Amino acid sequence: MQTVEVALTARSYPIYIGEQLLARGDLLARHLPQKRAAVITDTTVAPLYLDVVTRALTAADIAVTPIVLPAGETHKNSETLNAVFDALILNRCERKTALIALGGGVIGDLAGFAAATYLRGVPFIQIPTTLLAQVDSSVGGKTAINHPRGKNMIGAFYQPLAVIADTGSLNTLPAREVSAGLAEVIKYGVIGDVPFFDWLDDNIESLVARDAAPLAYAVRQSCANKAKVVVADEREEHGDRALLNLGHTFGHAIETGLGHGAWLHGEAVAAGMVIAARVSQAMGLLNEVDVTRIIKLLTRAGLPVVAPDFGLARYLELMGIDKKVESGKIRFILLRAIGSAFLTAAVPAHALKTALAASVSHG
Amino acid sequence: MQTVEVALTARSYPIYIGEQLLARGDLLARHLPQKRAAVITDTTVAPLYLDVVTRALTAADIAVTPIVLPAGETHKNSETLNAVFDALILNRCERKTALIALGGGVIGDLAGFAAATYLRGVPFIQIPTTLLAQVDSSVGGKTAINHPRGKNMIGAFYQPLAVIADTGSLNTLPAREVSAGLAEVIKYGVIGDVPFFDWLDDNIESLVARDAAPLAYAVRQSCANKAKVVVADEREEHGDRALLNLGHTFGHAIETGLGHGAWLHGEAVAAGMVIAARVSQAMGLLNEVDVTRIIKLLTRAGLPVVAPDFGLARYLELMGIDKKVESGKIRFILLRAIGSAFLTAAVPAHALKTALAASVSHG
Repeated sequence: MQTVEVALTARSYPIYIGEQLLARGDLLARHLPQKRAAVITDTTVAPLYLDVVTRALTAADIAVTPIVLPAGETHKNSETLNAVFDALILNRCERKTALIALGGGVIGDLAGFAAATYLRGVPFIQIPTTLLAQVDSSVGGKTAINHPRGKNMIGAFYQPLAVIADTGSLNTLPAREVSAGLAEVIKYGVIGDVPFFDWLDDNIESLVARDAAPLAYAVRQSCANKAKVVVADEREEHGDRALLNLGHTFGHAIETGLGHGAWLHGEAVAAGMVIAARVSQAMGLLNEVDVTRIIKLLTRAGLPVVAPDFGLARYLELMGIDKKVESGKIRFILLRAIGSAFLTAAVPAHALKTALAASVSHG
Repeated sequence: MQTVEVALTARSYPIYIGEQLLARGDLLARHLPQKRAAVITDTTVAPLYLDVVTRALTAADIAVTPIVLPAGETHKNSETLNAVFDALILNRCERKTALIALGGGVIGDLAGFAAATYLRGVPFIQIPTTLLAQVDSSVGGKTAINHPRGKNMIGAFYQPLAVIADTGSLNTLPAREVSAGLAEVIKYGVIGDVPFFDWLDDNIESLVARDAAPLAYAVRQSCANKAKVVVADEREEHGDRALLNLGHTFGHAIETGLGHGAWLHGEAVAAGMVIAARVSQAMGLLNEVDVTRIIKLLTRAGLPVVAPDFGLARYLELMGIDKKVESGKIRFILLRAIGSAFLTAAVPAHALKTALAASVSHG
């Protein structure tokens, strides 16, 4: 087991990474302020892992209230959130009763927001069971639900007491979701970690094949990269943290334009990163070699690198309600090179047009 | 104008107290990170004060998006909250667009929770226009909405950038609401400020009559008392802040038992304080003289001192879902004397029974 520490001033917390961690009731118990916990999971993950977690907690003398939600991004909404509140209240969960998110990013985001707002905040622990959740959404304290008019519009910054990433749980993931997780893994290399990008270039096939040792290394390296950024800018106030959104402004537009759930988040981010790279290239900032390396690595990871063709006007409209909008201007994360991302609002329309024309499917 | 500073380590903020402050666009403008703001108010307050605030902001070059909600505690729910989110999104309010709560405690709680969760948190300013909101709910960062099964079950701790308490706005309040506000004012004296309790004993009639100078003094003294407690225990983690809930455990039971809205919050707190005092007396902690002084002062303030008769079992049931429950035990705030409150879970059933029997109406 490896541990990455997220060293936030107000409260630090550990990310445990390794195999067979779901059965480690002691790891969970040491972070619980009360001998009770509500385990929030979904209909996909419950048959796979709810039993092992419940047994581990019970063996550690923790009483468990399971809350099983319908699976999928379409359920990350206020209706499901209210169902969680109803269950918490009916089971008389208290201020010190921890909520444990057992599942992917949707469960982590929703359970985290429930923990942030039930009784004005209760203890929270993440057990991410997808690659995307292990390398991205479970780390950093972002919680949210979707609004019919946009993704993650309603949420809170709320840090967990601990994150437990059992890489063994990735063996039951569909291949498409492994690829989607790799989009965020690759993103860390592209944003600011050239050695990691080079390592991924050498090892991407073994990650797609889920070899245990490289997978644990990729998760550890991704969490360490994310933790560094989160520590520097916990609430996305200084721009540092915004760099993590490379590809996400376009990615969110793709997800919203297609209807949430059509593409996986990581797939949309992959195609979005390609657009961001091409915008950077059209502005004369990024060279062709780097653009090609990014596209090739994403392709080898099994990810889409061609975006849906909504047309420029619709893309701009879809991006207009993005959370990163400031004084009516859209801010973009662009690249000067692999490993060198930056934030800017100064993107000429022609660069957007050229990049989109090169990045969308014409069919 | 007087200023009370809430000296929180993460971020301090001022409470401005005085007359004619609603027209002071400069006071607001100095706290806004953007030349835009959404003013959230209700159908009662909008006709009285929305114009003056909008004009003041416009004169200070701030663009205003007004959001007018239905008035009343019954609307402090997820439906109204969603209406606020819809309006914010439709008007493309951004991360730096401040939400300004203009109204009583319901508007402050709901707008504050909207500010805490819209785009994971946007700037927030309170303009409380009721006495209750000026002396209590606008100070300290508690925000929330109600759930069908309990008051303030869903919420967040979220501090405003500033609080602007215009005592002139109290002149349009119904007398019943002035009295309800005085319940919380008196509470500060009872909890821990004997000189203030004595001052109130000498001046309660001039407060009921809304004399400007004593009113400003009472608001200032109440805010200073509350700020002291909030600074010592921002998130109600150490028990200090829980003392502010004197009378509230019983008060919430009264409000829930009668149906929200039947009694004003301050009225329920007044009757609840009497029960808490009588429990303290039944346990031999508080003497008859102090119990009588509290009851007399509340009565002179125009407040109810007799609670509805639900019976002991129903009271216990109503208190069982209170937020202050810990490991299944109810915690009470009791008194050793006027000015000396403390927190305990060790309350014998006979004391509760005796106190309730003495405090409820038998009709």
